[in-house]
Amino acid sequence: MALKIPDIEYEERVKRVQVEMERRSLDLLVGYSSEGEPHHVRYVADFTPNFDFAGFIVPRVGEAALLTGGPESIVYAKATSRLSKVYIHPFLLETSAPPYPETAGIRFKDIIPDAAGEVKIRRVGIVGSNIFPYALYEDLRSAVRGAQIVEADDVLFKVRMIKSDAELRMMEEASRIAEKALMEALNFLEEGKSEREVEAKAKCAMFKAGAESTAYPIWVCSGPRTNQGLSRSTDKKLGRNELIQLSFGAKFQGYCGNICRPLTIGQPPPEARKLMEAGLEIENLILDAMGPGVEAREIYEMFRKALSKHGFGRGSILYGPAHGTGLQECEGPWIDGAAFTLEPGMVFNVDIWLSKGDMGLRWEDGIAITKEKGKQLSSYRREIIVK
Amino acid sequence: MALKIPDIEYEERVKRVQVEMERRSLDLLVGYSSEGEPHHVRYVADFTPNFDFAGFIVPRVGEAALLTGGPESIVYAKATSRLSKVYIHPFLLETSAPPYPETAGIRFKDIIPDAAGEVKIRRVGIVGSNIFPYALYEDLRSAVRGAQIVEADDVLFKVRMIKSDAELRMMEEASRIAEKALMEALNFLEEGKSEREVEAKAKCAMFKAGAESTAYPIWVCSGPRTNQGLSRSTDKKLGRNELIQLSFGAKFQGYCGNICRPLTIGQPPPEARKLMEAGLEIENLILDAMGPGVEAREIYEMFRKALSKHGFGRGSILYGPAHGTGLQECEGPWIDGAAFTLEPGMVFNVDIWLSKGDMGLRWEDGIAITKEKGKQLSSYRREIIVK
Repeated sequence: MALKIPDIEYEERVKRVQVEMERRSLDLLVGYSSEGEPHHVRYVADFTPNFDFAGFIVPRVGEAALLTGGPESIVYAKATSRLSKVYIHPFLLETSAPPYPETAGIRFKDIIPDAAGEVKIRRVGIVGSNIFPYALYEDLRSAVRGAQIVEADDVLFKVRMIKSDAELRMMEEASRIAEKALMEALNFLEEGKSEREVEAKAKCAMFKAGAESTAYPIWVCSGPRTNQGLSRSTDKKLGRNELIQLSFGAKFQGYCGNICRPLTIGQPPPEARKLMEAGLEIENLILDAMGPGVEAREIYEMFRKALSKHGFGRGSILYGPAHGTGLQECEGPWIDGAAFTLEPGMVFNVDIWLSKGDMGLRWEDGIAITKEKGKQLSSYRREIIVK
Repeated sequence: MALKIPDIEYEERVKRVQVEMERRSLDLLVGYSSEGEPHHVRYVADFTPNFDFAGFIVPRVGEAALLTGGPESIVYAKATSRLSKVYIHPFLLETSAPPYPETAGIRFKDIIPDAAGEVKIRRVGIVGSNIFPYALYEDLRSAVRGAQIVEADDVLFKVRMIKSDAELRMMEEASRIAEKALMEALNFLEEGKSEREVEAKAKCAMFKAGAESTAYPIWVCSGPRTNQGLSRSTDKKLGRNELIQLSFGAKFQGYCGNICRPLTIGQPPPEARKLMEAGLEIENLILDAMGPGVEAREIYEMFRKALSKHGFGRGSILYGPAHGTGLQECEGPWIDGAAFTLEPGMVFNVDIWLSKGDMGLRWEDGIAITKEKGKQLSSYRREIIVK
């Protein structure tokens, strides 16, 4: 009954990773994840670190392994991971760790020969390269001396880009939960309630509906603060006739669902209404255009034309109209002018950010590319919301 | 009315950091933070990154600056940071970032001359060294070529170790919120409710009481899963006569308050009761012993004797009986045998983890060292809890 990715998919994931490694002549793949960026390790091992950090090792041939920081997380790691091999690397301990003399001396040179098995290591790929700590990198370099080390994030992003039916079910559930949060927050909010109170309402709705966490630190911003493309809620009270932005993402079994809506309490001022209407029109336009076999560049051109029609220049937007989503709310590929074809199994968030400098808004909804169509994952109140 | 650290404290923090830099002959300090590890940047700038990463630069003399990833977070960063100088470094962009051609070429060589002002750079300290990404490190090395780069986390931890009155007020509020969450979760839980449902209840209580977030990914674990020192809640249902562990930390204005309690529904089996009673006795013993002027080593010896009295060896515990707390739930110093004196302004969590291999538990409460005494920050249901 429980919605969960079956074990067999984790075996298949490792095999798909190994196919990509073969294509790139990679003998070993070493991944790194943290509490804030758990996605790569969650994908390979279904493990989400807490306090300590985590990693994985995939050899070109043979079994993959989870890496964890030490004695405090090893029992949790072994109980949770879908991989049966688990190693400790003390550089993955939490920031202020107590001394663990039994494991303090372990290094990659002690782990890799066992993890790599028969594979001769000439070329090593690292995954999570933008957050891969330099001390861990130096230790890896010293353990595989003579081998080449390259950034190989694309291996994981490529494999993760095409979702299985089970993954899509998790994302549908995450989207359902995000919509529920939006509904409850909209019912709850009123003039004089603070951004933080509305955020709290949305989070409670998510957790009650079964979310394991938010998809990212969700936020409510309002009035002049809506010009923040990324933000966090404050104690500011919601006012009448000012833009209010709700950005609500939920996580279910590691997978994200996201919905973002602007609204006003009382009628929006003309400038705000214009921004809301333009954003909504473009959001619908892009969602309707997405489907299997469609060229990403065509979507991007359509976006550019729509912006131009409404008189929005480079300063009004931040990026293209959509990005991939999955174990991260925002993961490749971006629809930003790059050439690729939308394929069944890809899942996107259409993410329309528009700013006039002193106010901004974001419309965002999920859409899965199936064999037949673009299947929208969220649609609740995709309209001009005036409370 | 709002509980908030005053601006003047941020100026004083930078000055205290600069005093420690002078002592260590550091000309420049470069810090790095992430969504999951926001503490260092929060301390210096009162900024908490979202999606993008963040950093700071403190020159030996002059103004400190915040670093952020790019166009999507710059408006938020400028609106939030207590530092007026803000720079973009594109290596701090979120993991799957869209292209930002306007800022893509920025490197430390473009930032540091302006940030450092007149200071000649011979020695650079990095903070957040365990998570400092290697690409950022390489860019820093190339920008300060000829200078020595050293790990300087101790500068921040030393300055952060002594809390101001305002910081202590934030921690008291965070502890109050954590106790409220414990109370509501205890009222709510019963046989057949899942770990995740109880966690959800605790989180809702925290957010309603004004928490900005949890202090860490909080958890409920039960039965055989209580042997996990670090854990995450699952869909497992709570049973009768089995150990249940509640680990609830709340964050208020960036500061943590934490309370951990074991309990049972129905009477505990004898082995579980013994573990609960021993843990409670040791928790109280250590809390009572802590105060200004007390030697940390004496506390540790007391802990060792108490363990020995109850027949617990090295395999039953993970670490010493207490650790510092503040912007991180667990931050230095550890009371683990190291020699130092408890000083006014230090805040600790007494953290008694005991395991019998097939079950474990943690008692945890906050205590602030004031001029007069050890001031306990949490005490709710510090007793054998049988529901």
